[in-house]
Amino acid sequence: MTNDSIATVRWVGDALSGFLRLIDQTRLPTESVELDCRELSAVWEAIRSLRVRGAPAIGVAAAYGAVLGARSEGWLDVAAVRRALGAATEYLRTSRPTAVNLFWALDRMDAAAAEAHRDGASALERLLEEARRIDEEDRAMCRAIGRHGAALVAPGQGILTHCNAGGLATADYGTALAVIFAAFEQGTPLHVFADETRPLLQGARLTAWELKRRGIPVTLICDNMAAQVMKEGKVQMVIVGADRIAANGDTANKIGTYGVALLARAHGLPFYVAAPSSTFDRAIPDGAAIPIEQRDPREVTHGFGRQTAPEGVDVYNPAFDVTPAELIAGIITEKGVIRPVNAQTISEVLGSR
Amino acid sequence: MTNDSIATVRWVGDALSGFLRLIDQTRLPTESVELDCRELSAVWEAIRSLRVRGAPAIGVAAAYGAVLGARSEGWLDVAAVRRALGAATEYLRTSRPTAVNLFWALDRMDAAAAEAHRDGASALERLLEEARRIDEEDRAMCRAIGRHGAALVAPGQGILTHCNAGGLATADYGTALAVIFAAFEQGTPLHVFADETRPLLQGARLTAWELKRRGIPVTLICDNMAAQVMKEGKVQMVIVGADRIAANGDTANKIGTYGVALLARAHGLPFYVAAPSSTFDRAIPDGAAIPIEQRDPREVTHGFGRQTAPEGVDVYNPAFDVTPAELIAGIITEKGVIRPVNAQTISEVLGSR
Repeated sequence: MTNDSIATVRWVGDALSGFLRLIDQTRLPTESVELDCRELSAVWEAIRSLRVRGAPAIGVAAAYGAVLGARSEGWLDVAAVRRALGAATEYLRTSRPTAVNLFWALDRMDAAAAEAHRDGASALERLLEEARRIDEEDRAMCRAIGRHGAALVAPGQGILTHCNAGGLATADYGTALAVIFAAFEQGTPLHVFADETRPLLQGARLTAWELKRRGIPVTLICDNMAAQVMKEGKVQMVIVGADRIAANGDTANKIGTYGVALLARAHGLPFYVAAPSSTFDRAIPDGAAIPIEQRDPREVTHGFGRQTAPEGVDVYNPAFDVTPAELIAGIITEKGVIRPVNAQTISEVLGSR
Repeated sequence: MTNDSIATVRWVGDALSGFLRLIDQTRLPTESVELDCRELSAVWEAIRSLRVRGAPAIGVAAAYGAVLGARSEGWLDVAAVRRALGAATEYLRTSRPTAVNLFWALDRMDAAAAEAHRDGASALERLLEEARRIDEEDRAMCRAIGRHGAALVAPGQGILTHCNAGGLATADYGTALAVIFAAFEQGTPLHVFADETRPLLQGARLTAWELKRRGIPVTLICDNMAAQVMKEGKVQMVIVGADRIAANGDTANKIGTYGVALLARAHGLPFYVAAPSSTFDRAIPDGAAIPIEQRDPREVTHGFGRQTAPEGVDVYNPAFDVTPAELIAGIITEKGVIRPVNAQTISEVLGSR
């Protein structure tokens, strides 16, 4: 970890009395507020309301949330812990549908609960240990993504990114932004163009904030300016994160990503995805099977603290879209860069499951 | 005019004591407020601040504003009126750089001032008459655009539009929306998808409002959802307005239009521009010569009553972009549809200047 690390999610204390502390990302960039979650329901709400967001960070937060849930019936015996953990993971799975890291992390918590345990307390300790492992592994994966991706950035390049795939979207350091951070730390001059990312402005609020605090040159644009920035030759590559990647490489990410990928192709620019192996869902063949979350119309009509559309207007507000593998120049993982992107190269880099 | 008409801009009273009344579009859709401009400076500010916006409406407002300016030294003699009018049109030309209707309307006011006049009062009356002509001609052009364009809309189509090219962008009835209004009035079922159009949300605030008040089905989306809506087959055509069209058909329009045109091409959808002949600037060969207004970063960072980006972040905020003629399936004018779009077909439909 560097001094620039962000404590996006962390566990405070021990398994029996500790709690989850997270940065309330809905308050950034104007307020820096931490939220302590001592109950399962608070974690569910934090994920649902995007107080914590980004596929890897959701996975880590959910794992810690499962520990909170697992002790909700006390820890008199292993069965009580297992029962409570099972209910907790089932509940947390309903918080958001698209990011697969959520389900991946909860599967690991379920498996840890199923192991042999001496007593309830040690079962809880094992669950916290598993959550901490998920957390630590995510940190390591982000660093490795940065290392693999930095080699793709040529000096002086402009890099467009969409939404936030930084330290705030992971346990620390990020995925798409990890590539940028690592290249910059190696002394590669670069300039980032950050799509503001409507409706919830993760690019304006979070990505611009992360880049500025690290001293990396960043220019904020509205989403609809990306094509113009490309036409003017201001960017030479695009890097984004991912919420779920199918077996063939089709990638779900924040709404607008698919459009950016098409614009990149129209301007002959490479479009990269950066994501850990935990974001791959190789049980589904392609992007058509990825569930896309539909969110509250008020995110669009009342997003800035006041009403900006006619009362009662019909709104379409999908939170994600799917970019087909053929638009993706490469997927930067902790195990290396998958390029070109197809089921075979994914298996070659990540192994066959 | 129908009952659905919008009094976007109108002159109240006579030439010597009347004033310009306009809808303050920055207050829509939550407040319906009219602004009375009795001084030239108020008109300049209204155009600059987008209280009145849309290329044709800017032209009409500027013409009336020139009348206010022309009487600022009284009307003791023709020379005083001419002198004041000259200063007024020069000043109004500095309000916004891209929409050519502004310059076109002010050229007409200058020419009207240069005619022979009996005395100062009759010079002012002639100037008001010219402004009223520009106003009336714009209404007629919009209706004709609607008639020509309606034939392009097949029953049951989804139509995507960007920004606002409706009654609020013109003296009445609109350009891109005129096509939609006319098709709908003829009984053609259709559904509009309105890009919200960051940063100032003309699509959310104005287009959705205009369509709803006419009972036309409309769904509001964020700009970055356009690609997804196209991919899902929800729209079959795109229609937008224009701020300036070069001799070869390259078209400046609200930022984001160029991106939408590229996305339409990627999905095989026709992309139409609707604009009156007054929006053509045939003195410039192509879009490279169109000046693009850069606007205040605070429109992006503080757009809606609260700060949504880090303090002091660098922002790129071009108000317009240029869509190359080759991406445009046709330009719908009051004289007919220009298709394919090139210098020759433009001359054939509009005449050789």
